[in-house]
Amino acid sequence: MMQRCLTLAQQAAGYTAPNPLVGSVITQEATIVGEGFHPQAGQPHAEVFALRAAGDRAVGATLYVNLEPCNHYGRTPPCTEAIIQAGIRQVYVGMVDPDERVSGRGINRLRQAGLEVFVGLEAAACQQINEAFVHRVQHRQPFGILKYAMTLDGKIAAASGHSAWVTGPEARATVHQLRAICDAVIVGGNTVRRDNPHLTSHGQSDRNPLRIVMSQQLNLPKTAHLWQVEEAKTLVLTETEANLPFQAYLRQQGVEVVTLPTLTPATAMDYLYQRELLSVLWECGGQLAAAAIAAGAVQKVWAFVAPKIIGGQNAPTPVGDLGLDKMTQALKLERLSWQSVGADLLIEGYLT
Amino acid sequence: MMQRCLTLAQQAAGYTAPNPLVGSVITQEATIVGEGFHPQAGQPHAEVFALRAAGDRAVGATLYVNLEPCNHYGRTPPCTEAIIQAGIRQVYVGMVDPDERVSGRGINRLRQAGLEVFVGLEAAACQQINEAFVHRVQHRQPFGILKYAMTLDGKIAAASGHSAWVTGPEARATVHQLRAICDAVIVGGNTVRRDNPHLTSHGQSDRNPLRIVMSQQLNLPKTAHLWQVEEAKTLVLTETEANLPFQAYLRQQGVEVVTLPTLTPATAMDYLYQRELLSVLWECGGQLAAAAIAAGAVQKVWAFVAPKIIGGQNAPTPVGDLGLDKMTQALKLERLSWQSVGADLLIEGYLT
Repeated sequence: MMQRCLTLAQQAAGYTAPNPLVGSVITQEATIVGEGFHPQAGQPHAEVFALRAAGDRAVGATLYVNLEPCNHYGRTPPCTEAIIQAGIRQVYVGMVDPDERVSGRGINRLRQAGLEVFVGLEAAACQQINEAFVHRVQHRQPFGILKYAMTLDGKIAAASGHSAWVTGPEARATVHQLRAICDAVIVGGNTVRRDNPHLTSHGQSDRNPLRIVMSQQLNLPKTAHLWQVEEAKTLVLTETEANLPFQAYLRQQGVEVVTLPTLTPATAMDYLYQRELLSVLWECGGQLAAAAIAAGAVQKVWAFVAPKIIGGQNAPTPVGDLGLDKMTQALKLERLSWQSVGADLLIEGYLT
Repeated sequence: MMQRCLTLAQQAAGYTAPNPLVGSVITQEATIVGEGFHPQAGQPHAEVFALRAAGDRAVGATLYVNLEPCNHYGRTPPCTEAIIQAGIRQVYVGMVDPDERVSGRGINRLRQAGLEVFVGLEAAACQQINEAFVHRVQHRQPFGILKYAMTLDGKIAAASGHSAWVTGPEARATVHQLRAICDAVIVGGNTVRRDNPHLTSHGQSDRNPLRIVMSQQLNLPKTAHLWQVEEAKTLVLTETEANLPFQAYLRQQGVEVVTLPTLTPATAMDYLYQRELLSVLWECGGQLAAAAIAAGAVQKVWAFVAPKIIGGQNAPTPVGDLGLDKMTQALKLERLSWQSVGADLLIEGYLT
C-alpha cells in the first residue's frame, strides 16, 4: 500500500514545488476504498483527496501516506483534523515531515486523538522520493543535481568542442524525462554559445522545467533556442549592471531577466530557494559545474557514460578546477547505482 | 563438461604463450575418467594429459576439448592421432582452431577415422577464453588491452599529476590479478618518471608479467622500482642510438634493453609478436594510450571508474589526442559489460 502511495505521489513529480510529493491510500480490510495525491501547491493534500474518495468508508479504515500528515494551517487546513474527523482508526506513515512546523506534531496529534500510528513503512523509498523536499527544508536551498554525458575516456566533447551526441537516443530521452521532473535546468553562457540547447523535455512530458541561464557579462548570442519562450519559459540570471541593452532585448523576447548584485552558484541558489524551487538540474559545462560543486549546490550526480573513446589531451571534461591537488582530496560519492540506458550507462551517486 | 574444460584451461592463464588455453575432459557414461590442460608451450597438449589419465577407459569414451585438436607436428605430435589410437568414439569441440595449419583439418581427420565430432559447444565462452590467441593468429599481433582507472569526472590524476589512488584496494587487487594473466604490461617513460610503478601482481599470483617500458629518448631516472628485476623481469624498448650510457647502465642492472630503428606502438607490437607474446596490458598514460589506440594496438578496454570527483580543467584523462574533431567520429566499444569491484565500477568493452 505504501508503494501504491509512492506511485500516486510520483504522478505530480515536477508540479508540487515547494511542496513534497505525497500519495495516500485508504483501505478497509485490505481493499482500497480511496486514494489520492497532492497535485500542486495550493491544492488539497493527498489525504484529503483520499478521504473524499473514501467517503463514509473511511470510518474505522486504515490510511497510508508516505509523509507525515500536516498539523498546521498553511495554504490548506491541517490534514490531521480531516483524518480524525473522518473516523480513520489506523495510520501508516512513511516518514516524519522534516519541516519544523510539522516534524512529529502531526503524528502526536493523531495519537492523542486515539488513532494507532505506525511510522517508517518503506522509509527508504519515502525518503528517496522526497529527497529534494527534505534537502530544501533542512538546508534552505534547492536540491542540486549535476547531469553530464561523457565518453568512456572522460570527455564531454571533442577537443574542438563538438559534442553532438555523446550518448544515444535512449539516454537523451531519459534526460528529457529527468528535465520534466526537475523544477529548473541551469546552464552557463558557454553552453548557450557552444551548443544552443533547447533544454526542454522534448515531448517526453507535457511539462518543461524553467530554463535558466547564468551569465555575469550577458555576452550571449542574439539568436538562441532559449530566447523562444512559447514552449518553455526562460530565466536569465545576471548582474545588475550587465549589458543593459541586451537585458532589454531579452525582456522584449519574453525572457525573464533577474539581476543579482553578485552572480554565483550560491547567490543563484539562494534566489531560487526564495522562488520556491525544489530541485535544479545543472546541465552546464565543466567550469560552472565545478563552481556549483564548490558552492555546495550539487547533491547528486547523474553521469551518463557512452561506450566510445574520443581522445583529446585538452578535450573538455565534466568538472573543471576544484583546487584539489591530491587524489586523496577527491570528493566522494556514496549510494552509487548504475543501470544501462540503451547502449549507454547511467551512474548515479550522492556527494557526501 | 565444456565448462569444466574451460576451468581446467584457465589454470594455465599467463603461462601458455604463444599457445592457446586448452582443457580437455574424457567421460564414460557421464562420469569423468580423465582430464587435463595445456600447461605451457613445449609441454603436451590438454588432450594428451586427459588421455593419459583415462588410460584404457578412453576406449569408446567421449572427449571434450575447448579448441579443435591439432593435426600437425609442431613441438608435439598431433593430438588427432592420439585421440584416434586411444579409441575415443565421440568428440565435442568448443571452437575451430583459427590457426591456418589446423583450421578444420583436425576435425576432418577425426571424422575420417570414424569418430563422431560435434563443433560449437559453449562456442562463445570458448572464443572468449582464447580471444588473445585468436587475435594473435588472425592479425599477427599480440592482443592489446588498455587498462585505466579514472574518477567519475574522467580524470586519471589530479591536475598536479597526483594519482595515488584513484580506485580502492579491491580494484587494485583485480588489476594485479589481471597482470598475472597477461604476458606483458607496457608503460611509457612518463609513467616511470611520475608514478615509479612496480607493475607486478603484488602477491595475487606466483606469476608476474614481463614489464615493458617504451622510451624513445631513454631519459629515465637512474633509480626506479622497474630496474629491480629479482621479482619480475623488465624489458626496455628504445631506439638504436638513444642514450647509450643509460642503455649500458640498465643492462648492468639486469634490465633487458632492446633497440628498434623506430619505436612506436606498432613496431613494439611487431617485436612482441615475434617474441611470441599473446597479450599485452597497456597501463600507460593518455599520450601513449592514444598512440596505441591509433596504431590498432588496443582491442579491449578495462576502465575502472571510481565514485569520486577530483575536478581539473587540465587534469590528465585516460586517452590523449586521437585527432578526432567530431563526436560522431568517436571510436565505438561493443560487447560492453560492467561489474562492481569494491566501491568502484569496472567497465569492459571491445574496440570495434
